[in-house]
Amino acid sequence: MSVTEIYPADRVMLREVGLRDGLQMVRTHPSTRAKINWLAREAAAGMPCFETGSFLPAHSFPQFADVQEIVDAAHRAGVHGVGLVLNERGAETGIRSGVAELACVVSATETHSQANVRRTVADSIAVVAHACALRDASPHKPLVSATIGMSLGCSMTGPVPLSSVLSIAERLFEAGIDVLNLADTVGYAGPAQVSGMVRAVRNLGAGRPLAVHLHDTRGLGLANAAAALDQGVCILDASLGGLGGCPFAPRATGNIVMEDLVFLCEKMGFATGIDLAALCAVRDILKQEMPDEPLYGGFARSGAPLGFAPTPLPG
Amino acid sequence: MSVTEIYPADRVMLREVGLRDGLQMVRTHPSTRAKINWLAREAAAGMPCFETGSFLPAHSFPQFADVQEIVDAAHRAGVHGVGLVLNERGAETGIRSGVAELACVVSATETHSQANVRRTVADSIAVVAHACALRDASPHKPLVSATIGMSLGCSMTGPVPLSSVLSIAERLFEAGIDVLNLADTVGYAGPAQVSGMVRAVRNLGAGRPLAVHLHDTRGLGLANAAAALDQGVCILDASLGGLGGCPFAPRATGNIVMEDLVFLCEKMGFATGIDLAALCAVRDILKQEMPDEPLYGGFARSGAPLGFAPTPLPG
Repeated sequence: MSVTEIYPADRVMLREVGLRDGLQMVRTHPSTRAKINWLAREAAAGMPCFETGSFLPAHSFPQFADVQEIVDAAHRAGVHGVGLVLNERGAETGIRSGVAELACVVSATETHSQANVRRTVADSIAVVAHACALRDASPHKPLVSATIGMSLGCSMTGPVPLSSVLSIAERLFEAGIDVLNLADTVGYAGPAQVSGMVRAVRNLGAGRPLAVHLHDTRGLGLANAAAALDQGVCILDASLGGLGGCPFAPRATGNIVMEDLVFLCEKMGFATGIDLAALCAVRDILKQEMPDEPLYGGFARSGAPLGFAPTPLPG
Repeated sequence: MSVTEIYPADRVMLREVGLRDGLQMVRTHPSTRAKINWLAREAAAGMPCFETGSFLPAHSFPQFADVQEIVDAAHRAGVHGVGLVLNERGAETGIRSGVAELACVVSATETHSQANVRRTVADSIAVVAHACALRDASPHKPLVSATIGMSLGCSMTGPVPLSSVLSIAERLFEAGIDVLNLADTVGYAGPAQVSGMVRAVRNLGAGRPLAVHLHDTRGLGLANAAAALDQGVCILDASLGGLGGCPFAPRATGNIVMEDLVFLCEKMGFATGIDLAALCAVRDILKQEMPDEPLYGGFARSGAPLGFAPTPLPG
């Protein structure tokens, strides 16, 4: 499938990242069976896209040792699966897995790049180019996306010049990515900043879609999501219950809360096709498997407003 | 002072409502000494405006029995004090207290009006008119503001027609109010709805300022605040730590979190003049006085972004 078939320009696509980003730092890992159940139930609630795990050595990241099984579960559920790729070997494993999208990561700053992956930004872009070459040579041609981490502020160097992000974005599009993802990895952004960055970046990719990956570290995650939606961004990452912290921001909450993001989209007139009550019910799996992890979110706690009607899907 | 001296059209004014709205439902009430300390320390952090309490019978609302002392503390701290008025007697007590602003409330729906104050909407508007008459006859001429509760959705009737809110707003301006406050009492709103309502209402008052009072019940409070700021609203209510629930929305969190709202304003380029670190430190008083009350907020937990610089105040 082409990128515009998977991510149509006229439809908001939400991506559940709890099964990867959400599990990056948790103390207890859900069983493979529980993960598959989580994916299947959330897919049944209407979620179209899932991060399935990370293609990393299982001895270092045991929580992702079962990534192949989750990739397969996404195929069975008929949803779009994404797998994280941090190096050449990961790209090769990812291609072999049959996952529908390889998600690469590049830091917006050299300092963070060295600290995170002991590699320059240019070397990280080379990994992306390698993934794109593998894609082009593969029979099934998965999408290749790239996330620019810390693009809205860096926990190691502070404010990030927009020109740095634009330069990296241009090189990533040249390397052949299908989707660009701007990440506020540590929750530094505000809505005016998100709007400005989206306006600056969105025309670089000759129609290739833009995604945002927002964290709610300082309470502005949903305000930033609204700003991105207002600027025409159609792909947004979030996790059920806001599961997931950040290794670069101690004490920080993680991703924006999926349930609240769905409510935001519906209230703004962007149909998601997601059944909010069914989505909230999937939190039970997380509570059971990871009882020590705090789950966030106002919608799940308070329920739908009286008379609330989701935006109808077109067609 | 005139309304435009107190609420200049070119400056964001945040109002701490924790000492009234925040205390509406708490299990333990802070001592008068602690309230005065809270107000004084938050004023010293730069907060320009405080709800001081409610002019209601002390036997029914013991948490507001000391409202006169808090009004006096606001005067001593040189900040703008607001007192809640729900009936004629409250308006008279409020005028005598010397509080700088009488805040009246009108429900957006007849059903909620009857349930909340056993009075029609028209009778509530008559209370507002009475407060305005008392103001005009008084030597010190406090401001009179009116909040339209449930204006963005009603927990008893569901969606509220914009035309109902417009009609009530017109009658309130005719009654002589100085400030109109639109309240999303139960957290039903989304940012597009807030924008639309502000655009519809803001020209009714012939330059008299508009305020918004938002709750974070379903996670969209800060997104709604950003929408209001984008539409030129300069007066926003919030409470330290998001203190306060809602009698009409069981299990609901309360007001939007002041610390996160200040961060939002500063990130959007609206100077608040508030020292965020000093503001966060005031949470200690709430923790000590009300240990059972959950305090919310990302900024207080995570701290300022590296290199974060507040927007400079003009002049």
